Amino acid sequence: MSFEVIETKEQVLADNDAAAAENRAALRRSGAFLVNLMASPGAGKTTTLLRTIEALRGKYRIAVMEADADGDVDARAVAAAGIPVLQVHTGGSCHMDADMTRRGLERLGTDYDLIFLENVGNLVCPAEFDVGADLRVMILSTPEGHDKPLKYPLMFQVSDVLLVNKTDVASVFGFELETLRRNAALRHPGMPILPISARSGEGFGAWTDYLTAEIEKRRANG
Amino acid sequence: MSFEVIETKEQVLADNDAAAAENRAALRRSGAFLVNLMASPGAGKTTTLLRTIEALRGKYRIAVMEADADGDVDARAVAAAGIPVLQVHTGGSCHMDADMTRRGLERLGTDYDLIFLENVGNLVCPAEFDVGADLRVMILSTPEGHDKPLKYPLMFQVSDVLLVNKTDVASVFGFELETLRRNAALRHPGMPILPISARSGEGFGAWTDYLTAEIEKRRANG
Repeated sequence: MSFEVIETKEQVLADNDAAAAENRAALRRSGAFLVNLMASPGAGKTTTLLRTIEALRGKYRIAVMEADADGDVDARAVAAAGIPVLQVHTGGSCHMDADMTRRGLERLGTDYDLIFLENVGNLVCPAEFDVGADLRVMILSTPEGHDKPLKYPLMFQVSDVLLVNKTDVASVFGFELETLRRNAALRHPGMPILPISARSGEGFGAWTDYLTAEIEKRRANG
Repeated sequence: MSFEVIETKEQVLADNDAAAAENRAALRRSGAFLVNLMASPGAGKTTTLLRTIEALRGKYRIAVMEADADGDVDARAVAAAGIPVLQVHTGGSCHMDADMTRRGLERLGTDYDLIFLENVGNLVCPAEFDVGADLRVMILSTPEGHDKPLKYPLMFQVSDVLLVNKTDVASVFGFELETLRRNAALRHPGMPILPISARSGEGFGAWTDYLTAEIEKRRANG
């Protein structure tokens, strides 16, 4: 059993960080809290989002920015729930960057307490581009497997919190939460890991409590 | 129910196509058939690959190129099966391009009948970069949902064949094969769609027959 490893490298954008800092400052001025929601395709971003909104819409004024290469499936679902939503087409790009996010925020307006950016379904590119969010939330679904921190290290490194979704079917896929915790700790020791099922609602109390605490912490630090 | 749509666009690499054509010519000279295997993270690329290899290793000399942002989990699994494998680290890039593939083929050698490139787990970027493969195979797993052709059109457009994996758990996720067929037909009318279960082996006869026919067709055309 042997194999070779070769390294290749692509250039990444230069001044994204400065644009992200500007977004962050603009959000701070307006008082809106921006969540950057990142995950693989089909991990359950929209279902998680809708259930989170349902729990918090009595407390906060909420809006959503949906980023997709194409289509408007998720934006329709959010709009049907009566939540202001902007669909951003990335034109084939695999992620949102800070400038796309700025343009989206300008169109959407920031007269909200809480804005969710549902990023393009992807475990690589979105991790590389700071968009100026207050909180970076990653969702990993159990069918994807507990080895993902080994293959997509940066996403786990840059996320503030990890939601493990589809826990109700974990056993079907041989998904081991303890192995996931061990693998994730290699990339980001101490990152909170919250198991949820967006379908059944299991675990959403802990998650929305966590999110509310983060929003209130930011407000207190004003 | 209403929402806005705004368009953003990123520049893509210029001379990738020329490099891909060179790869294609080099492969033709050597007689090796290159398969570019693309899917989301956790869709079952490696499990599908291992079962495909098991079915065809008596017939063809096979090698594998594993592309990942980091890690060597999949390369270890392939090596354990006794198959020559090269791990390519893309250094954070979300896809293989033609030049990375050329470098990989040079290291791996082309003294094989069949070479699989397991691309980075991603439904966006790999679709944009022709690597010079003879066959582009996409895997969609049922937990990802039947709406994916609406959100990731290019991947469905550029793939020659679509394997629908994890059919054994389709009902758990409300995955409807007919809806998927309808959505996929919007992007790529006539593309063969083969349901499989890489876990149980269901559907692998049709898939390996298809692959064998493609390899033999290429050989017959010289």
